[in-house]
Parts: sequence; structure tokens; C-alpha cells
Amino acid sequence: MSSTPPAPAAPHRAEIEHVVRRLLYQRLGQPLPRSARAPRPLIVNVSARHCHLTPQAVETLFGRGHQLQPKKWLYQAGQFAAEETVTLIGPRSRVISNLRILGPCRDLNQVELANTDAISLGFEAPVRASGDIKGTPGCMLMGPVGFLELPQGVIRAAPHVHMHPDDAAFYGVKPGSFIHLRVGGPCAMTFDRMLVRVSPDFKLEVHIDTDEGNACGLTPGTPCELVP
Amino acid sequence: MSSTPPAPAAPHRAEIEHVVRRLLYQRLGQPLPRSARAPRPLIVNVSARHCHLTPQAVETLFGRGHQLQPKKWLYQAGQFAAEETVTLIGPRSRVISNLRILGPCRDLNQVELANTDAISLGFEAPVRASGDIKGTPGCMLMGPVGFLELPQGVIRAAPHVHMHPDDAAFYGVKPGSFIHLRVGGPCAMTFDRMLVRVSPDFKLEVHIDTDEGNACGLTPGTPCELVP
Repeated sequence: MSSTPPAPAAPHRAEIEHVVRRLLYQRLGQPLPRSARAPRPLIVNVSARHCHLTPQAVETLFGRGHQLQPKKWLYQAGQFAAEETVTLIGPRSRVISNLRILGPCRDLNQVELANTDAISLGFEAPVRASGDIKGTPGCMLMGPVGFLELPQGVIRAAPHVHMHPDDAAFYGVKPGSFIHLRVGGPCAMTFDRMLVRVSPDFKLEVHIDTDEGNACGLTPGTPCELVP
Repeated sequence: MSSTPPAPAAPHRAEIEHVVRRLLYQRLGQPLPRSARAPRPLIVNVSARHCHLTPQAVETLFGRGHQLQPKKWLYQAGQFAAEETVTLIGPRSRVISNLRILGPCRDLNQVELANTDAISLGFEAPVRASGDIKGTPGCMLMGPVGFLELPQGVIRAAPHVHMHPDDAAFYGVKPGSFIHLRVGGPCAMTFDRMLVRVSPDFKLEVHIDTDEGNACGLTPGTPCELVP
């Protein structure tokens, strides 16, 4: 465990590019293209399998009073990948070691797997919005000081986009609606049901899982566009 | 090894449904919807990782005079999943056991992996049409009687559709062009670069890999449509 938390993340490269691009168009006296008129640049990130835990679950797995240590800050403010990982044990006694915990703690326990992970371990993980875990499969987690059996919480996260209300207004979408994500490149693909999540705390960011990211061959240079 | 080859595959359920649907519309005196006017029904199949081998490679791995034994006939006439499998050894000494061989033998050796497989083993597998293996990574294969080092041949197969010339005419596409595959359901997704392969020997069939199939959550009931 690191004793000093990592420095807060610097602005994302795409944020700086977005600002510079707008200034350049203005300086040249040219009309802004649609992507540059957007309040925020579009960031598309691949979420590898991970879990969210309650403070009680962290204590069961890591010991009384234990608190998650930030290892890396994520793009959404205050969210981090923790130093801590757990072992996930599936119904066929297959395991995934080093399942990363994302912090801060939440008020429910949830394991998010790609479909390939779920099939490999033997979970029938339904596609759900984060937090909507009623009736989903349970699992066993193992930490350095204890086991924790979850009665439910194993999901495949629906591909989704975090939006600030300004982003939602720009794209003309509402919370809980769907938008298309068009991905270019040699494995060009359009995600036709990208769930829209809106909060004043959110920055514009698409989350897809590793199956989705690998299927469309997403790299830092892959062109991506949200299409209402 | 089975000594008696499996019976040739019965007509695919979708083929029978296609014929019955056309007859019903005719009997009812109703115009055929576009999907029913197509020469063939659309079959979408997920190809798990596999390899194609030359007769010489089969002899190196399985012994002199060895011939692949059909385990299961595939939808394309004469193609089969063999009883034989090999072990694939990647550059990080990680392995995939039980990599299925597809028969009959070809005039080149080729390993087709999903992107997730390739990343897990440490291959930088480019997206290629089958047979286009120049400059792709090599690998080591292990069979029951020997090893075989391939200097090249590890690819991620481009998502593609096999078409009879009648299908190509119906959809208005040419060999080597691209068509869209629209997949419905809770993970609705459109593949925007589905490579068109045409031969009088082909029946209409889309092949996607396990990443792509898992990303769009393909099941036997998932609605799929080719869109030029």
C-alpha cells in the first residue's frame, strides 16, 4: 500500500485539446464544427472488470477500520482505482484474482464483469445499469483477512455515458434515455443503446467494458462520436 | 477420436423457417417483406478462437499420415470442427489449451483469436481477412507428437459475411466491400465494417468472434439484419 495518495489527476489531454481547438477556430474567425461547440470533449474509456464495495465489506475483507487507498484517480471527480484488489470466486469454483476495487465506498456491493469474464466464470450476468442489482447472481469475494458472500450484485454494466446537464442539453437527451456512440477505424462499430446518466457531478465520459472495447479495437487515436 | 464421422448437418432451423415464411405469405396472398424476399435467411454465428492447418502441419503435430476427423459439421458446406485440438503458446509463455482445428486442411497455417485472447497471450494480432497473413505475428503450436513453429499467421479475423453471388446481388454489394450488420436486443450494436466475401460455394452467414458476439450479447433469438 502506498502511504501517500497519488497527486490529483492533471486535466485530461482531450480537455486541453478541446480548449485549444476552440481558441484556434475563434482566432481564425471560422465557425466552430459541432464537436468543438460541445461543452466538453468526448472521452471514451474502457472499464476493466472491477467491484464497488460498502465500508462494511471492506472491513470484512481487509480488516477493521481499513480504508481504501487511492492508486489512480479516474476521470470522474473523486473516483479512484484503489490499491486493494480481491479474489472473485465463481459458481464453477473458477476465480479471477486481482479484481480491482473502485473507490470511494458505496452503499451497495457490486461486481462488474465483461460478458467474456462472466461466461468464463459461469455467471449469468444480466446487463444492468450500475446500482440496479436486484435479482442478479451472487458470488464469493476473498480478501487478505476474510471472505464475503454477496447474495447478489454480479452484473454486466450496460454501456453508458456520464453527462453533465450541459452535455445532456447539447445532445438533446434525458437521463435514462439512449444515445448512439459511433466508433471509427478498421473495426468500426456503432453502439446503439448507450445509456445516458446525468448528474451535475459528471464530466462527459463513455464507459464501455473490455469486450466492447476489444470488439471495436478502441485505441487512444480511434475516432468516436455521440449521435443522438 | 471418433471412428465414424458425424452425420451431415440437417438443414439449419433458419433455412426451414425461411421457406415456411415465404410459403405462408404466398398462401395468404400478402406481399413478402424484404427479409423474406432474400434468397437465403441470415445466419449469424460466433467463431470461437481456432486454427486452420496445412496437411504437413497436421502430420508434424499429430503424426505421419494423420488426417483430421470431423467432430461437427459447420454451416458452410464441407467445413467442420475437427476432433483434434492443439495447444497455442504465446510470446509471454502463456498458453491456450484445446485450440480447435477447423477442417478441411488449407494451403496455409492461420490462428484466429479474439482480441481478448490475443491481449491475454501477448500477441499484437492485426485485423485481417482470412488468408491475408503477411507480416502477422508467429506462434508455437504443440500437438500430441510434435511442436510446430509458425513464422506468421496469428490474426484477429475481420468480421465478415459469406455470401453466394445471389445474396451479393440482393444486397447490392461486391466482394471485398463492406456492409452493416445491425444487431438488436439490450446491447444493440451495428457493425459498420462487415467484410463481404462472395463465392458460389458460400451460403449467407455472418462470422463474428467471441468478443464481438459477447459485446452484442448475441443469442439464438437476437434480431439481426444486414443493411447495405
